[in-house]
Amino acid sequence: MTDLEALLKSVLDEITPTPHEREKITRVYEIIKTRLEEHLRRNNVWAEVTLQGSVAHDTWLRGDRDIDVFVLYPEDWSVADVKTKGFELIKEAVRDVGRVEIRYAEHPYIRVFVEDVEADIVPAYKLSSPSRIRTAVDRTPFHTEFVNSHLKGGLNNDVRLLKKFMKGIGSYGAEIKTKGFSGYAVELLVIAYGGFLDVLRAASEWRPPVYVNTLGEEWLFRRSVEVLTKRYPDSVIYMPDPVDHARNVTAAVSFEKLARFILASKCFLRHPSKTFFENRVEYDLETLESSLGGRCIVVVEVESEKPLPPEVVWGEVDRVRDRCVKLLSGHDFLVYHSSAWTDDSRKGVIVVELDECAKPAYKLYEGPPFSELDRVSDFVSKHIGKSVKLWLDRDGRLMSVSRRPVLRAVELLESKQREYLVSPHFKASSPTVYELTPAKLKEIASKYGEEFLRASLGKVESWLLECTS
Amino acid sequence: MTDLEALLKSVLDEITPTPHEREKITRVYEIIKTRLEEHLRRNNVWAEVTLQGSVAHDTWLRGDRDIDVFVLYPEDWSVADVKTKGFELIKEAVRDVGRVEIRYAEHPYIRVFVEDVEADIVPAYKLSSPSRIRTAVDRTPFHTEFVNSHLKGGLNNDVRLLKKFMKGIGSYGAEIKTKGFSGYAVELLVIAYGGFLDVLRAASEWRPPVYVNTLGEEWLFRRSVEVLTKRYPDSVIYMPDPVDHARNVTAAVSFEKLARFILASKCFLRHPSKTFFENRVEYDLETLESSLGGRCIVVVEVESEKPLPPEVVWGEVDRVRDRCVKLLSGHDFLVYHSSAWTDDSRKGVIVVELDECAKPAYKLYEGPPFSELDRVSDFVSKHIGKSVKLWLDRDGRLMSVSRRPVLRAVELLESKQREYLVSPHFKASSPTVYELTPAKLKEIASKYGEEFLRASLGKVESWLLECTS
Repeated sequence: MTDLEALLKSVLDEITPTPHEREKITRVYEIIKTRLEEHLRRNNVWAEVTLQGSVAHDTWLRGDRDIDVFVLYPEDWSVADVKTKGFELIKEAVRDVGRVEIRYAEHPYIRVFVEDVEADIVPAYKLSSPSRIRTAVDRTPFHTEFVNSHLKGGLNNDVRLLKKFMKGIGSYGAEIKTKGFSGYAVELLVIAYGGFLDVLRAASEWRPPVYVNTLGEEWLFRRSVEVLTKRYPDSVIYMPDPVDHARNVTAAVSFEKLARFILASKCFLRHPSKTFFENRVEYDLETLESSLGGRCIVVVEVESEKPLPPEVVWGEVDRVRDRCVKLLSGHDFLVYHSSAWTDDSRKGVIVVELDECAKPAYKLYEGPPFSELDRVSDFVSKHIGKSVKLWLDRDGRLMSVSRRPVLRAVELLESKQREYLVSPHFKASSPTVYELTPAKLKEIASKYGEEFLRASLGKVESWLLECTS
Repeated sequence: MTDLEALLKSVLDEITPTPHEREKITRVYEIIKTRLEEHLRRNNVWAEVTLQGSVAHDTWLRGDRDIDVFVLYPEDWSVADVKTKGFELIKEAVRDVGRVEIRYAEHPYIRVFVEDVEADIVPAYKLSSPSRIRTAVDRTPFHTEFVNSHLKGGLNNDVRLLKKFMKGIGSYGAEIKTKGFSGYAVELLVIAYGGFLDVLRAASEWRPPVYVNTLGEEWLFRRSVEVLTKRYPDSVIYMPDPVDHARNVTAAVSFEKLARFILASKCFLRHPSKTFFENRVEYDLETLESSLGGRCIVVVEVESEKPLPPEVVWGEVDRVRDRCVKLLSGHDFLVYHSSAWTDDSRKGVIVVELDECAKPAYKLYEGPPFSELDRVSDFVSKHIGKSVKLWLDRDGRLMSVSRRPVLRAVELLESKQREYLVSPHFKASSPTVYELTPAKLKEIASKYGEEFLRASLGKVESWLLECTS
């Protein structure tokens, strides 16, 4: 066994679900399935209860505690029936099984907590062919069918390795919060390239935009890519969905998450190391604290009036972050980096590191060229009152060193809220804006948890250090 | 008489030499001329003593105290003879007339001070045609001939107005220190356009590069321009010398000085005012002092080992200024403006205003893109020791917030002298570098005079205020 093989085996030993876990997951699924089937029968509804997702594919990771259960209703039901009657049947069936939550994706579905397992139970259609798909979730059973028929000969373990690798380097997760690869995308990559290392070898050579042949037949793939590039002009990686060739499985992968995966693949192949699977960040609260003296980190906390679905709150808070960055940049602050965090519901925290927290009292204003008399006149009139020097420069342009109206970043963010509170649910919120101090740092850590600080202000993700030769 | 006519008449009344001045200038010239002629005769040299320049053209301004005397030697003398024997004859002739200085242009010449008049006495050739010119100064007698035969009907007063106007707005003076219009260029402008206001009306429509027909005949002018644009590709205004069509009289006018003249012409024509003739700057030492708290003005003083001719010292110190600006800009300082001053001999003072005197302790460094593994490796290795955050950004580029090596502008200018002390006579000098404080300001004012502070740190040239509508 080579070092690399030993390394992968050792990782696999850590991420393969234990027999105990398998037994528990199976048991929970059976409980739910039985309840659902009994309730459906009592109501004279013929529907199929199925297991989907990574548990069904046997690609889930040790420690994962979520299962996807799909209740497949007859094709002759209306969409409205599936959405209401189908949903209600599920809700009634499992109400005594555990704590129940109503969740929303395209349709409402049920999340039920049994022991420490989280089961999402989704109403969908029982269809004979993917061409008959009517709602987004109807694709899932076909995904399971495709994956289970193609992940042969232990390739499911390669999926586990690739998932863990992508988690380790921060490219895993299709939610808007992450904009990385979905579990299904990882499965398709392993199927397309034939194994964990094969995917990495291919990825290490990728140059975005990337096209992955998930369809096998070259002509099918080429035809699909033609459709996908038109339909998803902004995607950076194209992977046709084998069950729906007009759909790009990786439509939402961001450039950054793709770049991470490509770079990490290069680095891992040069220096294989467990670090890539560990999602570690060099972060130390004390070191961070002591560096604050020479840095300017500004925090903006926002809160919506009512709880929002995770996809909504992450999307909106990220938009607020983006506008904060634009506002600050527009006032001469150099934004070193910025990040957003939410509690998946109402609260958003935005962290922005700037070159400095206050700009110099005087700013250089560039005026019009000498050739435009009216604009020269306006510039002189506008600046003369606040200028300490106004002149024609070497390029024949009017210039002025004038008093700057707002010096502090915090003051700017407090006075121009309308310029960044642009997303619907945060328009009316009153943000709290402050410069990060050691005291505030501790407050955030205890209020929101260190996970966020680690991600936004940690020194470096450990895998990046493995990229040195 | 219109307001404008009254204004110009009033200016003219102030700038026309008084009879007393005329009498004195004539008297001094006669003394020098007599001495020269006697001495030449005694030495059996046949040469013509002539008056040149603005006194000869009757275009000098009240208060001007300098006359140009040319001693024209026979054409059969060698250049070396004119330069040595011709020069020596002059030196001996005037040594008792007043204090004598030896000056250098292309050739050495004599400056003699009689009463409060400064007379430059230049050895040159007596030539029958400008085509026989052998040294730069030989053109001067032909210039006088041309100007005197074309400045008819009181146009010499228009020249006085235009000179005074150009002085008032800072575009007058062909020395390297100013890079503006020479007296001869001003005379040619008045001849070409027919009067002071005609020049301003034309100039107000100029768009650089500017071509002024000083030759009359359109075909001659076009042929000359063809030659000039090739020979002076960097000029911003082309005025063929009527006595040498292949020479651009305004070759050395800088873009800035041309832009000033164009803008001032526009402004004056909209709002005629005496201000344009006054060379006033809004400057007040106390206001300047009180603004220093919020500003960063850095001063660099240099000194060459030996005295240098004015053209040399101004040229070299300006090069040092330019390199200081580049050094500071290259280290993230925003240079608001910079200026240089010299004592016309050895000392140079450079003033640079910056956004701030110290940069933040941490700087954002942009690294290579994710796709270049070796460069990524180098970047991580180089930065990890001094970084507080190193990451892959949204564009897939490595970034680091790292400790900045040099924070203060003064420290930078002290430690990197070799990068800006590039001109031959200042290479070995030890510059004095400091931030301008009220105390230092007073020191400079008393050491170098307020003229320099007025120009470099004055609030605004008053004529610019007349550009508001």
